[in-house]
Amino acid sequence: MTQPAARTVMQEVSPKLAELSADVLFGDVWERPELSKRDRSLITVATLTALYRTDQLRGHIGRALDNGVTRDEISEVITHMAFYAGWPVAANAVRIAKEVFEERGV
Amino acid sequence: MTQPAARTVMQEVSPKLAELSADVLFGDVWERPELSKRDRSLITVATLTALYRTDQLRGHIGRALDNGVTRDEISEVITHMAFYAGWPVAANAVRIAKEVFEERGV
Amino acid sequence: MTQPAARTVMQEVSPKLAELSADVLFGDVWERPELSKRDRSLITVATLTALYRTDQLRGHIGRALDNGVTRDEISEVITHMAFYAGWPVAANAVRIAKEVFEERGV
Amino acid sequence: MTQPAARTVMQEVSPKLAELSADVLFGDVWERPELSKRDRSLITVATLTALYRTDQLRGHIGRALDNGVTRDEISEVITHMAFYAGWPVAANAVRIAKEVFEERGV
Amino acid sequence: MTQPAARTVMQEVSPKLAELSADVLFGDVWERPELSKRDRSLITVATLTALYRTDQLRGHIGRALDNGVTRDEISEVITHMAFYAGWPVAANAVRIAKEVFEERGV
Amino acid sequence: MTQPAARTVMQEVSPKLAELSADVLFGDVWERPELSKRDRSLITVATLTALYRTDQLRGHIGRALDNGVTRDEISEVITHMAFYAGWPVAANAVRIAKEVFEERGV
Repeated sequence: MTQPAARTVMQEVSPKLAELSADVLFGDVWERPELSKRDRSLITVATLTALYRTDQLRGHIGRALDNGVTRDEISEVITHMAFYAGWPVAANAVRIAKEVFEERGV
Repeated sequence: MTQPAARTVMQEVSPKLAELSADVLFGDVWERPELSKRDRSLITVATLTALYRTDQLRGHIGRALDNGVTRDEISEVITHMAFYAGWPVAANAVRIAKEVFEERGV
Repeated sequence: MTQPAARTVMQEVSPKLAELSADVLFGDVWERPELSKRDRSLITVATLTALYRTDQLRGHIGRALDNGVTRDEISEVITHMAFYAGWPVAANAVRIAKEVFEERGV
Repeated sequence: MTQPAARTVMQEVSPKLAELSADVLFGDVWERPELSKRDRSLITVATLTALYRTDQLRGHIGRALDNGVTRDEISEVITHMAFYAGWPVAANAVRIAKEVFEERGV
Repeated sequence: MTQPAARTVMQEVSPKLAELSADVLFGDVWERPELSKRDRSLITVATLTALYRTDQLRGHIGRALDNGVTRDEISEVITHMAFYAGWPVAANAVRIAKEVFEERGV
Repeated sequence: MTQPAARTVMQEVSPKLAELSADVLFGDVWERPELSKRDRSLITVATLTALYRTDQLRGHIGRALDNGVTRDEISEVITHMAFYAGWPVAANAVRIAKEVFEERGV
C-alpha cells in the first residue's frame, strides 16, 4: 500500500489517529531539530526492520531515500540489523528493499 | 483466510491443537464468566494489534463485532495501541479493520 | 519504580517525551469518551502483559484497580493472555500482579 | 519466495549479508557438530514460529523435512509453541506447514 | 524465582491458570510421545531465549538439564539463536545459563 | 553488568559465540565504512530500545556516547522510538539512559 493510500485508510477508520499522525508525529516530532531527518530515517528503517513491520517498512525505505540515506546505507542498516534482531528480519527487509529500489530506479 | 477455513487447516495439520482450541480455549476459557465476551474481544483485538498478528486479527475483529464491540470502539482500541505498541502496528490494524468493516457493512 | 518516580526520570532525560505523555497520551487520549477508563485499563494491562513490559505493567495494574477493574478481572486477563501471547508472559504478569495486590491489600 | 530466490535477492541488495550467510551461518554454525542438523532444524522451526517470521518459516519447514524432522514432529513443535508463544503464532505456522506439506507431498 | 515458588504464585493469583498448567501444559502436552522431553526442552529453551523471557528461561534451562540436554548443547542452542533472534537475546541467555550451570555444578 | 563482564561470561558459556562477536560482529561488521560508528550506534540504541533489550541497551548507550552521539541525541532517539515501538519501551529506555548519563557525568 502506498503511503497516501495508508493515510486515507487511517483517516476513514480512525480520524483521531490520522490527526495525531499529522499534528504530533509528522508535524512536531519529525520536525524537531534535535535529530536530522536523515538520522530519523536511519533509526526508523532500522526499527521497522528489527520489528518485522513489513508493510510500514516499504514506505519508510522510500522516505529514507528522500531524506538522503543512500541505497548502500540502507543495505548496511539491514546487515547491521541481522546481528541485533536476527537473520530472518534482515532477509525480510532485503526483499522489501529490492522492491523499493526497483520502483525508484536506484 | 476465514475462521472456518483456519479451523479446517488446524484440524488437518495438528489435530491435537484443534482439539485444545475447541475444548480448552473456546470451550472453557472464553466461556468463563470472570470476563464478559465483550471484554475478552476487546483485549484480544488489542493484543493481536500490538503483536502484529495480521492474519488472526482479521477474524477477531469480526468476532468482536459479534460480541458487541462497536466499530467506533475497535477504532479507538487501535488508536490506544498506537501509544502502547507503536504507530506501525496501529497502521497495520487500521488496514485490516477497514476490510472487515466493509465486508460486514458496518 | 513508582509512577511518580518514572515521570520525574522522563522529565529529566526527555522533557519532550514527558510533555507528550502529559498532554497527548494522558491529557487527550486517555480522556476520550470513545472508550471508558476501565476499558482502556483492561486493554493496557493485556498489552503490557503480552509484550512482557514488566516495569510498566506494575504501574498499570495499580491504575487498573483505580479505574474499577477488579483483582479477579486482572487475574482473568492474565489467564486469557496465556493463550494469546504464551504461558511465559502470563507467568511473568502473575508475579507482578501478586506484588501489586499485596501492596494494595486487595 | 523459494530459498534460492531469497539468496539471489540478498546477494543483490546486500552482498555482505549474503557472504556472511554463506560463510558464517550456513558454512560454519550449521555445520558445527555440537548440535545435529535435525536439532538445529527443530529449534529453528520453533523460533520462526514463535517470532511469526512467516516468510522465513516456509523455507525452514522444508529444510527441517530434509534434515529428518518428520511431518508429525513439525506439527507437534507448532502445538508446543502455542503454549510458549501463543495460539496466533501456532495458527499462522499451521497454515504455512500445510502449504509446505502439500508441495512436498508428505 | 524458583519453579516451585512460581507455581505457588500462579495458584494464588490465577487458580485457573495454575490448573491449566498442571492439567493441560505439563499433564498432557509435555507428556505426548510425538516429541521426546529432550526435544521439547530444546525448543523451549530456544524459544524463551529468542523471546527474551528472562525469568522463565532460568527454570527451563534447569529442566533441560534434567531432560538430558547437555551443558554444551544448551550453549550451542544459544549460539544458534544469536543468528535467528539477534545477539542481544543470546547475550542475555548466556548470563542466565551461567547462573544455572553454577547452581547445578555442571 | 558491564560490557567486559558480559564478554567474560560469553567466553565461558559459549566460546564460539564470543569468537564470532570478536571476529565478525565487532571485528568486521562494526568496522565497515559503509556506515559510520556514530550511525551504527544510533541504530543500535534505537533497536535495543524498541526491542526492550534492557541489559544490552545499557552498554550500547555508553558506546554511543563514545562514538560521538550526544546525550540530547540519545534522548531524542528514545522519544522517536515512543512512536515507532510504543511508550513503554521509551519509558524503559529513559530509566536506563538516566543511569548511564549519571555514571558518565554527562
